[in-house]
Formats: sequence, C-alpha cells, structure tokens
Amino acid sequence: MAAYELHYWPTIQGRGEFVRLALEAAGAPYIDVCRAGDDPADAEAALLQTMADPGLAHPPFAPPFLRDGPVLVGQTAAILHYLAPTLKLVPRSEPLRAWTQQIQLTIADAVAEAHDTHHPLGVGLYYEDQKPEALRRAREFCASRMPKFLQWFERILVSNPAGLRHLVGGKLSYADLSLFQLVEGLRYAFPQAADKVLADTPQVVALHARVAAIPRVAAYLGSDRRIPFNEQGIFRRYPELDLP
Amino acid sequence: MAAYELHYWPTIQGRGEFVRLALEAAGAPYIDVCRAGDDPADAEAALLQTMADPGLAHPPFAPPFLRDGPVLVGQTAAILHYLAPTLKLVPRSEPLRAWTQQIQLTIADAVAEAHDTHHPLGVGLYYEDQKPEALRRAREFCASRMPKFLQWFERILVSNPAGLRHLVGGKLSYADLSLFQLVEGLRYAFPQAADKVLADTPQVVALHARVAAIPRVAAYLGSDRRIPFNEQGIFRRYPELDLP
Repeated sequence: MAAYELHYWPTIQGRGEFVRLALEAAGAPYIDVCRAGDDPADAEAALLQTMADPGLAHPPFAPPFLRDGPVLVGQTAAILHYLAPTLKLVPRSEPLRAWTQQIQLTIADAVAEAHDTHHPLGVGLYYEDQKPEALRRAREFCASRMPKFLQWFERILVSNPAGLRHLVGGKLSYADLSLFQLVEGLRYAFPQAADKVLADTPQVVALHARVAAIPRVAAYLGSDRRIPFNEQGIFRRYPELDLP
Repeated sequence: MAAYELHYWPTIQGRGEFVRLALEAAGAPYIDVCRAGDDPADAEAALLQTMADPGLAHPPFAPPFLRDGPVLVGQTAAILHYLAPTLKLVPRSEPLRAWTQQIQLTIADAVAEAHDTHHPLGVGLYYEDQKPEALRRAREFCASRMPKFLQWFERILVSNPAGLRHLVGGKLSYADLSLFQLVEGLRYAFPQAADKVLADTPQVVALHARVAAIPRVAAYLGSDRRIPFNEQGIFRRYPELDLP
C-alpha cells in the first residue's frame, strides 16, 4: 500500500487533525507532507504553491487535502468519506455511510462555530481586533450552541440501535474519532463551560474516553506527531471566552 | 417511484433550496411537507415535533432533511450526495463523486459565510442587535471572501478536463445547480458587490445562465413552488451591507 500524503498547515491540529486521527487509528501509512521538513515557513509556502499548481484538475480550495496516488481530495468531511471504506472506518451499507457523513458534517458545523467565537468578524482581522465581539459570540456559543450540539451527540449515541458504544453501528467509525477530537478541543478552549455541558452528556464523555484508550490512538496522542493545542488553531484557550 | 419527502422551514429558500433544485431539475416526485398546509406556524411546529420524535434512530440536527421510505437523511451536502446517483446528478466514478461532494462542501462554506455577514455574533441575536458588527464582517466578505470563492469556481470550471460547461465531467451535476443558487443568492444580497466580483468570473456567470435556462429549472423558477428571497433567509438584501 503506497503511503497517503496529507497536506496541511504544519503548526496546528486544525481541520487536518480529523484526517490524522483516521489515518492513525487505522494504522494507515501516510506522510504528513508539511511536517516532513525543518522549517514551517518553507512548508507553508510549498503548501500554497501546491494548491496554486495550474496543472491540477481538482485543486483544493483550502487545506487539508489528501493525495492518494492520482486522486486529490479536499474538504475534511469529503476526505474522510473517501478514505473510510479503505480504512474500514465506516459500515458497508450506503444509508449508514450517509448517516456517518451526516454526523461528520454536524461535527464540522460545531467546529466552525467554535472557531468563530474568536473570529466573529472574519479571518481577516486578528483576535485582538475583535475581542468585545468575540465575547458576545462566545457567550452564545457556551450557553446555547455547545449544549445543543453535545446533547444531539448524546441523543444519537443513546438511540443507536446497535448500542451506545459507537455513533454508527457496532464498530468504530471516523465519526467516533471526530467526536473525540471535538470534545478534546472544547475542553481545551472552554475548560469550565465544556465541563458544565459534558456533565449532562455522560455517553459522549464515555465515548471520548474509549477512543482515547484505543491502542493506536493512545500511541499517537503520546507521540510527537500529535501537535499540542495552541492559540493559532481552531480551538484556542482564551480564558475570557470560557463562560460557564 | 414513491415521492420523496422534503422537510424544511416553509417560508424561506434557505438550505432546503439546494435540495429542491436537485429534485426539480431531475423531475423527481417530492412533497415539500412543510408547505403542504395553509399555516406556516403550524408547519414549523410540526417540523420541530418530527425532529424531536424519540423513535428516530437517525434524528437530524437541523432542517433540511429528506425522507426516502425508511431512510432519513439530514445535512444538505449529505442529502445531495445520497440523492444524486438515483437522480443522475453525479457521475458514476467514486473519485468524481468525491470531487462533486468537495465542491458542494465549498459552496456550503460560502453560504455559511454569506449568512454570517448579517449574524456575525450568532443566531441568538437579531440583525438589528449586531448591525455595526455585520458591517465589518460584510466588508471582509465582499472584498476578500466572495472573490476568493468565486474565483475558485471559475478556476475549476476552466480546468475541467471535460470542458467548461459543467463543474464535474461533461454533464449536469448537483454542484452546478448549487453554484447557480449561490450566485442567485449573492446577487440578491449584494447586487453591487456581486456584480463587481462576477465581472472577473465569466464562466461562473455563463454556467449560472445555462442552469437557469434548463427547461425544468426555468419552469420551477417561474412557479409558486420557488419561494422569493426575503429577509428571513440566508441571503438578505440589507443595502448597507452591499459594499462593492
């Protein structure tokens, strides 16, 4: 099996992390292209150059993107949907594949809203230039949106006909891995608010713990391949935005 | 063929419109469930009740969702991906299906950013309570994000190996229909800014015109099944936010 190439910003977990977790959990060979060299600035320049290549029939709009031989796929949820059958991280049935994708897209919506707490006026301005607006947006996110999302994940875990150990069917899927990462991110960015909301979603908490204990995932999380959370990524610890 | 059931807010185009356009362009039988009765308020209450049904194994997080016999699918892009093979709105090849989904997810990102111009601080507040922030967000959207998105669509049209009449391969796909709708919405919400950006993306403009001229699409757009744009939807005409 030839190694997949993952292309993503070299210094943050970001949206690339959802793809990394799937590749790591499956034990799939991959090259984290932008982290292979020594200089992140060089890697970022090369990443932009790759995307601008006029020879690409399917250029990605933004990182992350994945190269699998001749195939180039962008958009996190589309990458996971493409990879999952080969990585055995999704059931065979088409309706269950659509359901897994539906969950992933809802996780993506939650991730985008978590990001917008520190950039409500857009990515063209620094956080420091939109702090009062960030505070208002974070208030709604912590009080209303985070509970709404996490309670939906709790509900679908509890109503899974195959049991509440997984989001889809009776086996690990990429949706489980992505929900793990969402919980990780929320706990990092909003330690108090997330704890308060997670107190009412015990099955989400239990799923997070089970995923963290999967040997390959645990090995990955303990390795230097896992980039620590930081204040350049999606989930940022700005204590003033943690509003329990 | 049993009729599909589309479930969506009855008084706006919103995200449901991307699904409606696919069903209409394919001539597929469907019931627009929440518009079947006389009272939109009753329909909205029934919609919320449907979603809250504890018997659902796959409850949607939010409208739109589609019922196809025993299958219930939510999330616009997942609905389109699910429907498209039956409606013949996507090629057979798996890599081209992933590419179509990737384009759709990028359109969804553009739609979400267009929405956030009038709700940068979140959906829990009225536009009237976030007008100065909306102005700042709209400035960035019109000057930077809208051009970035539309130029990417122009680029992928021009680099389509099968020719520039379609986004994917040589036939109509749901991505073409969705790009039509994005252009419609941008022109409604930002008439001056969109015209300025579209002047540099002639192939996007030509694709929009071709889609509008498809007989089934033209018939739909001229019917009362097409809800007019309004200031409760995603694309809203607030002249102060139109910043060319």
